[in-house]
Order: sequence, then structure tokens, then C-alpha cells
Amino acid sequence: MTGKVRVAVVGAAGYAGGELVRLLSGHPSVEIASVHARSRDGVALSEAQPHLAPLGLTLVDGEPGEVDVAFLALPHGASAPLAARLLDAGALVVDIGADFRLRDADAYAAWYGGPHPEPDLLPRAVYGLTEWARDDLREARLVANPGCYPTASLLALTPFARAGLVADDVIVDAKSGISGAGRGAGADYLFTELTESTKAYSLGGHRHRPEIEQGLASAGAAVNVTFVPHLVPQSRGLLATCYLGLSTDLDDAALRDLLVDAYGDEPFVHVSEDPPATKRATGSNHAFVHARRTGPNRAVVLSAIDNLGKGAAGQAIQNMNVALGFDETAGIGAPGIHP
Amino acid sequence: MTGKVRVAVVGAAGYAGGELVRLLSGHPSVEIASVHARSRDGVALSEAQPHLAPLGLTLVDGEPGEVDVAFLALPHGASAPLAARLLDAGALVVDIGADFRLRDADAYAAWYGGPHPEPDLLPRAVYGLTEWARDDLREARLVANPGCYPTASLLALTPFARAGLVADDVIVDAKSGISGAGRGAGADYLFTELTESTKAYSLGGHRHRPEIEQGLASAGAAVNVTFVPHLVPQSRGLLATCYLGLSTDLDDAALRDLLVDAYGDEPFVHVSEDPPATKRATGSNHAFVHARRTGPNRAVVLSAIDNLGKGAAGQAIQNMNVALGFDETAGIGAPGIHP
Amino acid sequence: MTGKVRVAVVGAAGYAGGELVRLLSGHPSVEIASVHARSRDGVALSEAQPHLAPLGLTLVDGEPGEVDVAFLALPHGASAPLAARLLDAGALVVDIGADFRLRDADAYAAWYGGPHPEPDLLPRAVYGLTEWARDDLREARLVANPGCYPTASLLALTPFARAGLVADDVIVDAKSGISGAGRGAGADYLFTELTESTKAYSLGGHRHRPEIEQGLASAGAAVNVTFVPHLVPQSRGLLATCYLGLSTDLDDAALRDLLVDAYGDEPFVHVSEDPPATKRATGSNHAFVHARRTGPNRAVVLSAIDNLGKGAAGQAIQNMNVALGFDETAGIGAPGIHP
Amino acid sequence: MTGKVRVAVVGAAGYAGGELVRLLSGHPSVEIASVHARSRDGVALSEAQPHLAPLGLTLVDGEPGEVDVAFLALPHGASAPLAARLLDAGALVVDIGADFRLRDADAYAAWYGGPHPEPDLLPRAVYGLTEWARDDLREARLVANPGCYPTASLLALTPFARAGLVADDVIVDAKSGISGAGRGAGADYLFTELTESTKAYSLGGHRHRPEIEQGLASAGAAVNVTFVPHLVPQSRGLLATCYLGLSTDLDDAALRDLLVDAYGDEPFVHVSEDPPATKRATGSNHAFVHARRTGPNRAVVLSAIDNLGKGAAGQAIQNMNVALGFDETAGIGAPGIHP
Repeated sequence: MTGKVRVAVVGAAGYAGGELVRLLSGHPSVEIASVHARSRDGVALSEAQPHLAPLGLTLVDGEPGEVDVAFLALPHGASAPLAARLLDAGALVVDIGADFRLRDADAYAAWYGGPHPEPDLLPRAVYGLTEWARDDLREARLVANPGCYPTASLLALTPFARAGLVADDVIVDAKSGISGAGRGAGADYLFTELTESTKAYSLGGHRHRPEIEQGLASAGAAVNVTFVPHLVPQSRGLLATCYLGLSTDLDDAALRDLLVDAYGDEPFVHVSEDPPATKRATGSNHAFVHARRTGPNRAVVLSAIDNLGKGAAGQAIQNMNVALGFDETAGIGAPGIHP
Repeated sequence: MTGKVRVAVVGAAGYAGGELVRLLSGHPSVEIASVHARSRDGVALSEAQPHLAPLGLTLVDGEPGEVDVAFLALPHGASAPLAARLLDAGALVVDIGADFRLRDADAYAAWYGGPHPEPDLLPRAVYGLTEWARDDLREARLVANPGCYPTASLLALTPFARAGLVADDVIVDAKSGISGAGRGAGADYLFTELTESTKAYSLGGHRHRPEIEQGLASAGAAVNVTFVPHLVPQSRGLLATCYLGLSTDLDDAALRDLLVDAYGDEPFVHVSEDPPATKRATGSNHAFVHARRTGPNRAVVLSAIDNLGKGAAGQAIQNMNVALGFDETAGIGAPGIHP
Repeated sequence: MTGKVRVAVVGAAGYAGGELVRLLSGHPSVEIASVHARSRDGVALSEAQPHLAPLGLTLVDGEPGEVDVAFLALPHGASAPLAARLLDAGALVVDIGADFRLRDADAYAAWYGGPHPEPDLLPRAVYGLTEWARDDLREARLVANPGCYPTASLLALTPFARAGLVADDVIVDAKSGISGAGRGAGADYLFTELTESTKAYSLGGHRHRPEIEQGLASAGAAVNVTFVPHLVPQSRGLLATCYLGLSTDLDDAALRDLLVDAYGDEPFVHVSEDPPATKRATGSNHAFVHARRTGPNRAVVLSAIDNLGKGAAGQAIQNMNVALGFDETAGIGAPGIHP
Repeated sequence: MTGKVRVAVVGAAGYAGGELVRLLSGHPSVEIASVHARSRDGVALSEAQPHLAPLGLTLVDGEPGEVDVAFLALPHGASAPLAARLLDAGALVVDIGADFRLRDADAYAAWYGGPHPEPDLLPRAVYGLTEWARDDLREARLVANPGCYPTASLLALTPFARAGLVADDVIVDAKSGISGAGRGAGADYLFTELTESTKAYSLGGHRHRPEIEQGLASAGAAVNVTFVPHLVPQSRGLLATCYLGLSTDLDDAALRDLLVDAYGDEPFVHVSEDPPATKRATGSNHAFVHARRTGPNRAVVLSAIDNLGKGAAGQAIQNMNVALGFDETAGIGAPGIHP
């Protein structure tokens, strides 16, 4: 044996789960102990994830055994009870599902359509927007990995909220690649329906809105967010275009300075000199932010990530790295893939 | 001879020009008299536009001769002098370039980097957002065809402006297919650079912003517009997501009613029950609008068009139809192409 | 009433059915009498086909009533019994499904997994590769519309077969857009699975192979065909790359002459000077063919179509036009859409 | 210092060069000493390759200094003279350009339009199709990295050639993503021209044909190859569909066994149970092969790679690993990226 931590991935047949396995397979301090998927016991992982054939792994139906870390990539409602059992068994649990993102059980009930399965665990969960949560993450045993839209949006907005600059309600117009809809998506997600097309969705209310508002409130800006997500015809990539009313009129240089102050030393958040294309982040844990003045006391802040990277599996591993005291970039330091 | 009007297309080697020729070739009252492109005299149109091979046309370098109608698809600055000569010769001129869109010569100079070539013509130009300009179009000899972004944005916003409901500055977050950049686009527009990617651009100011503001002012709403255009990885299609502060709090039904009142009898503008995908309009002159309340006195209005259809060539022909007293849908009534 | 023929489209909720409705809506001699889809009685067509919203049609569950023409876009096995009833009622039936493509009931049984539902009708069916079947089509009451792959392949190969030049077995390596898989395709056809990917399929035998062999045999070349279809990441478009051993060594000019002799006067089949891109045909009934010598007595012949145009709905209307004595290009003469 | 080898990448502003830098940045035994691009001295690499911004590298105009390894990603004709100087200076040279692929200077002259710049070096170059060249690679100082099409084709065909089974001329119908055309591609490679389109090209003869024939001859099959490359609308990915006449009639199981015998122990070549999608290999050095019987003594063999991975940068590093005695998978072991 190695000295590596033993890791399980639960929900390994989906897109986020597959990305976790891909990244973990190259992590220098990790041994993949087991990969789990419902009703597929004994099936080769390559049947669900042909690109992972080189790893030679086999799926397990059932819960992880003795592991040091468990990543849960499950539908909401399904991870909380399992997390409870894994925590009891001593594992670090990183939930990339939604069960622990909203701190308030009532908010969970209102947005997810039922009572929280394990409300007592909510206070223990650390909301893992890594760059703004390191102190808590170092002590964490249960990490709520942020949603993809909140990750991009809060990376853009948190520096402004912390500086007390957010003077008004915020608009987030977000564009996501289709993989955000998951592998179980239906006939509306056929290639033929989506190629060469862009549309907005969830105008009646998307579960990531209260998560963004919670994050802004934590950073000192208790404002409403108008959140309109869109699907764009690409597999990966997410761009949040955030419209801000500011308490001070900042020019382009001042906006940039604010972002550089916040992220200049960060390994994964880069202040770009031009509006970042989502492709810059594809396949990676990197994020690119950029801000411009659009009028008196107004600014637009852009944030580009890979929804499966920094928006899901990448950040989950980043959070594990912090929680276990590893080099924060271990296994996820690679730049994006282009073209 | 037929009784058909004789039509010239100038700039037939580009994307908008090619779309004009495609649509005009099926117009029951049109004879394509000549198709023009610089430095390509005598070259088969199919060399520049292989999909138009079935038409058997040949390009001409030089100005149109005796024609009833001339469509100009030229870079800004190039169409105005030609328009002057064609008007003198008695032709109806539909300029799908930018020379006559801004009514104010100073605004033109500020946004297009030089004095207007034919300022005396500006008062004669009718801004051809057809649905809101029919009376003027019936008398028009010079039509300024709106830009693609203004077309989508103003279809969404004009009903609110006319009703005196626009209480605040407006945000337009727009997403366009790549054909909006034209055929002369450079290395940043290679397939490899743009596939699987979304980005914002022209944050420092896009020429379509003053055009949208001019259109809103004409409709009674003298407000500022924050305009952020994006490129999405598709060839055609444009979605304008418009964020509005309203003077009255309207619920979803009232928002819908307002749009239905404005467009219920229109052949080309459809109030859709769900957020419209741009693909719904591909290849057509149809537009789809939809509105939702996003908070107290706030709404989002969506508008989807084909940037080369209602956003360029389709609307140009619609404007010709009105100006010449043809059936407004002649040659452009076909629905979009799916999938 | 008009003087127009009354037409029904059965299977109007699918891709080929939707394309039929789109094209028929612009046909000068057609009135769309009814559009049919199972279990959707009374539902707006726009619910299944949002791009057809401008037509304002409503779906019917049930068989067409008194109509002059019925287009059947149904799964194999479903159209034959309906065709029988419609023929009895006096309609012209154009089946764009597979039930009447193979002339031999045993071959049908072998390839389609069961006995033919209406074997007595087989001798009455005219195989509608229009350019090579006009004489029969003029008398036809039942048209078997060719499959998409056979259409492209046989347009490429028939001139060689008729000239007695096919000296050897033929290889057809075909590439199709995803719409060929239909709207009912499952999870393997999600955008995320197919974008940025190409693959072969049906290596064990595809039903279009015997259809291509039947067509070649009719044209005088009783050879075997190796047929390997591929999916390429685009919605529409089909390219057949055909590898031929010839009984005579023909140079490029002679190959081109052979194609020009066959198709020089055709309105829909164009001999192109360069390898045709499938996009040239998108949205249209046009086909583009091109041939090159690849070695002694060897040639490659390329054929590009829109699988939903000349490969399905377009050719179906072309066949109706011939059968009813209309102008062959009526309603389908438009060139392709680019870009 | 580390004990790592010092590596230079020449031509780092292109696609293959960028991929080399991306992969080398994660190689445990490599230090990137310098990255070179003409006329860009002192420019941040991120200006040419925004996705590589996290690496913080700066471009150099000029030749590598003291390095252990130089990767050359240059146009043909440009790498040979530089290779000569680098070899003299003691570096291992891996040329991912074309200068050393054809062993015969006359063949080079015929296909590349001019005399070979350094014919004396040709005998020293090892053709680096790694799986079939390890013994030579271990002694190599100059590696000719195979072209993308030859890599895929020869992985498919070599086992048959070595077994003496190739009885006839071979047809390779290949489909490549657009990145194969490079970053300098012109207006025909705009997104708008290529999306939703597939086409063949270079029918008059492609430089990779003699390279495939040379590889087959080395493996014992001196046959002609008909090679027809196609562009498919995706950025990365290459599929070679190879049609073979065999000296023995092999069933599917025997075909599979042959491939498993050849590649069963290989870390990068996988015998798949179904026709492999190119996406399986995206971003990786993995290749997937599959064979099926298509008739008596006939077979089709499929081979899917990432043209920039196993088809260029990945294999180049694999070759370096072998030449320097590193673990062959070092830095390139990661599976592909999906979706």
C-alpha cells in the first residue's frame, strides 16, 4: 500500500461522477477504492463511461466501505442520508449534489419540494467555494460543493460584496453548456434539438438563485438576485454575466484592481484582460474573471468556468485537498484544453 | 418580361447578401436583375456561394443599372454614396448596412469613426423595424434596415416603451450566432476557436447600443441601455434577454397580454408560451417573444430571431414588400427549419 | 375550395413529418388538409414542432379522411396497412417509411424482422429515386420513397451502373447528420454524447444496404455493397463516399462527363467542380455529386444531400409533383441555406 | 534544480505546440525550459494560448539554448535545418512536423514540392509509431512523429500487415476534426463555413498517403492505399475507417483476437467491443481500435484517436518517454475528457 487516501465516488455513471473519476485517477495522493452506480453492480465502468476504459475499473452497487473520502454525485435528497452514515464511519464527505448547499432547512424545503432528510447535519456542512472558505474547509468533515451557476456567479460578485460596493439588486444572466443538465436528460436534450440553438429556461425560478443570494448575504450584500440561466450549444462551459449597481463609481482600472486584490495570488482564479471565453477553462479547474464599467456606478462582471471542473468535480477535489492538507492544486492543476 | 420588379443585390458574396439572393429567388414578384461583388466581375455566384449554384447567377463588379429595387449589403460608409446615386436613378433602396440607421449625423460620426458620407439623405431614410414603421415605409424610397441586435431588442421592448411602462435604464444581454460577424471575420472566428465556447465582446461599446436607445426614445422611453453582446457557438440565431424596471407591477398574464396586444395579428412576431429557442426561427423571418415577471416591478423579455432573417435579409424584403404594396409575407412567409 | 390538391401528413410530429409540413406549406398547388400524430388529437402542431407555430395547424389522431395525397412518415410495419386503405379510398400514397422500398417480401422479412404486412401491394409500389424513375412515377399511385443513404448512394452510383462500368463490389462509406436517427432516439443521442464526436454504427448490417444493392441491380450492376454508416456531429446533411472498381480506366474529365451526361439537365442534381460539403444542400432538395480517379480503374464518387430534403421530405414532394403532373420543382425549388 | 530534463517547444503558438506545452506542464520529469514562436519574442504565451495563462510562460523568438529535448512543431521544410543544429548540440529532437516522416528523399521532394533540406539526417530518424517502434526509439536521437492520419490508419492496419493478411489494395476513409488544419487556416475554416457540414478534401492526393503506404510496406504489405480524408464539424478527433481485402476469411472473433494479440498489453491502444466514437479519446493519448467482417475475406477496421493527442503531441511525448527511458505513460496517462 501507498500512504494514499482511499476514495470512493458514488454516482460514477453520471457526468460529474465521471469527471471526478477522471481527475482522481491522476491525483498523486489518491487511491480510487470504489466507484458506485445504482443497479450496475459488477459492470465495467467503461460501459457507462467508455472514455474511462483505460482505468479498468468496475462499478459497485451499494455504499462505500472503509474509505477516507467519499464524493457523492447524487440527486438531491439521496446524498444526505448516505452522508450521515459515511460521516459516522469517519469519512470526509464531499457532496457535489444539492443537499447541503442551502444552510436553512426551510429554504431547502421551499426550493427542493420536501423536508430536508438530515437537518441536523446542516450546521456541520461547509459551503465549499474554496477561495472564500479555506479556514472552514481545513476543519471540515462535510463539504457542500457549490452549484455550477453559484460558483461562477459568486466568484464574480463576492469581491464586490465583501468591499461593501453592492448597492442594488443584482442581475445574473448565465449561459451553460448542456452537460449541466446531466446524463439523464430527456428528448429535449437530443443533439438535434440543441445544436445551433440558444434558449433561456427556468424563468419561474431556479434553485441556484437562493444559493447565490445566500452567498452574497454571507459576503455582506443582502440583495435580491434576478437569475436567468440559458442553454448554449456546447457540452461544457459556463459564463455568468453579472450586472451590478455599485455604491461608488469605479472605472475599469479600479474594477480590475478589486479583482486582482481578491484573486491575484489564487492558483485557479485568473483576472483576464479581455472578456474570457468559456473554452479557456474547458477540462480544468480554472476560472477567469473580468470586469468593465458600463455607466455611472454600474459594472458588468464576467466569470467563465467549466461547469464540470470548477463548477463541480474540480472544485470538489480542491476542497478535499484543503480539508486534508494536501497541496491545493494536487491532481487538478492542469490548464484547460484547447482547441 | 413578367410584371415583376427588377432587383439588384449589392454585396452578394457575403452572408447577408447571400441570404437576400436565396430569399429573392423564391419571391413571386421579383426578378433578380443583377448580383454584385467587388473584384469578382464575371465570376459565377456559386464560387462565392456554393449553395446558390442551382440559381446559375453570375457576379458583376460595378453598380446596378436600371433596377426597381436595390438591396445594399455593404460595409458602413460604402452604401450611402451608392444609395444617393440609386435614389436619383429612381430605385427603391434598402440598405441593410449601417449608414442610415442613426438619424443623427453627429451620432453616426461618433460611433462610426468619421463624418456621414451623405448627411442630407438621413431625413429621407425610414428606419425599417417593419411592425412599428408601416405608415412611413409605404412612402419610403430609402429604407434603413435595422441591425440584428436592435431588431430583436426593439421587438421585445417597444410595446413596453409605447405603453409608458419603462421606468428605468434597460439591460440587454444578447447572444448571437457567429454569422453576425460576417464572412470577412479573421482567425478568432475559426471553427476551432469558437466551437464549444461562449464569450462576451465589445464591452467598451457596440454600435448597436445607440441604435437601440434611439428606437426606445422614438417609442417614448428615453433611457440608457446597458448592452452586452455575446457570441454563442452556432451559425445563426440571436436571442435578446432584456431586463426591465417597470412603472407598474405586472404579473405574467399582464405581460403576455401586452405582447399579444402588440403582436397578436402580426404574421412574423409570435408571442410564445415558453422561452423561445433561437432555432425556432432559423432560416426564417419569424420572431418569437416572451415575457416573465422576475420581481416587484421587474420583468425579463426574451426575443429570438434569425440574425440573417428578421435580423437582416428577411426584414429587408419585408420592408420592400410594404414599400411596394406587395403582400407583406411574399417570398418570406416560410416557417423556420428544424432540426 | 381552391383547385389545390388536399394533402395529409401522417407522422407529423417527427423530423421527416415536420419537414414535409414545412415544405408543403409553401407549395403553390397544395392545401394541407390534416396533420396526424398518435395520441395527440387536438394538440397544436406547434407543441410538437415549435418552428411551425406560424402555420397554426392542429394535430389529429386517426387516419386521413378524403384527401388527394397522403404522405406517410411512420415506423416500418405501420404504413403498409394504412397505405392499403388510403389507396382504396383513391389517394396517392407516398410512403417515406421503409415498407415498400424492398421489392421482395422475403428480403423485407429478413431485414425488417417479420413478414410484410401487405405483400400484394409490393408490385404496385414505384421506387421513387425521382431522376431514374420518372416514367413509372407518372403512373404511380403508391410511391416508396427511398431511404436517405440509398438516395445519396444511388445518385452517385447509378450512372456508372447504367453505363456498365461497375466491375467490382462497391464500398459506400457514409456520413450522416443526427436527424437521421429520428426524434425518438434515446440517451446515446444527447447533445453531450454526440457533439465533437464521430463514429461508425450498424457494422453488423444496416437495412439500407439491401436497398442500395437492389438499386444497383436494377441499374445493371448486381454487385455486393460494403456499407458503413457513420454519425457526424451535425443535425442535417449526408455524404456518401463511394469507392468503385471500374471496367475501364477513366480520368477525371471522363468521370465528370459521365455525371454531366446523367444529370446535366436535372434541376436537383448538380455536378460540382470540387468535393461538395453537405452544408451546400442544407434545407433543400438539391444533391451535389463529384467524382475523381483514385488509381487505375478506380474512382471515388461523392454525393451530398440533406437527409431530410432529397433524402426524405423533399424527394417525397418531388415524387408527388411528378405523379400529379405538377412542375417538378414546385414547392421545393429553393436553394440550400448557408451559413 | 530538479533532475528533470529541460525541454523546449518550438512552434508553441500553434495547436500542436499548445498541446505539447499543456501536457509537458504536467509531466513529472520535465521542466519546460523555453517556448518559441516566431515574431513574438517576449510576448506572454497566454496571448497566443489563453488557456495556458495559468502556466505564466513567455514566448521566445529564436532557437532553443541548452536543452535536453526539443519538440519541433513547424511547417515542413522549417524543422530539418533546426533539427540538424539541435542534434549537434546534443538534444533529443522530436519533430512533430513532416520533415522526417518519409524515409526517401525523392518521395519527400515529390510530395512536399522541393528537395529535402537535410537528406543526410533521414537515415537517423526513427518513425515514431510508438507501439511498433520501441526498439529503435530507445536508441533514437531524432524522432519523426507520425502524421495524424497515418497514426490512426497504421494502428488499425499494422497487425494485419505483419500477419501477412493484407491481400489487396487498402482503402482508408478518414474523418478528422478541424484542428488538423492548424491555426493558420483561412476563410474556408470559419465556424460559419464548417459547422453542420462534412466534406472530403485533397482528392488529388494527400501527403499522408505515401506515409501510410510506407508504414504498410515496412510491416510487410506493399500495397496501394486509396486515401480520402474528410473534415467533420468538431475540433478534435480522428476516425480512420479502413477497408481491407484479406488473404484469409476471418470472422469477427478472429479479427478481434488479432487486435488483442497486437495490443492487449498496450497502455494506449484499446480494442473496443463496439465501434469507437472519437470523443472517447478527446484530450488523451489513447487510441481505440475495432474490426468487423464485412464479407468473404473482407473486413473493416476502425481506429479512433485525438488528432492532437496520439496523432501529435501525446505520441511525441510517448516517444520522448521511450527514448529517455521514462515510464512510457508519464505525463500522458490520463483518460479522455467526456462529455
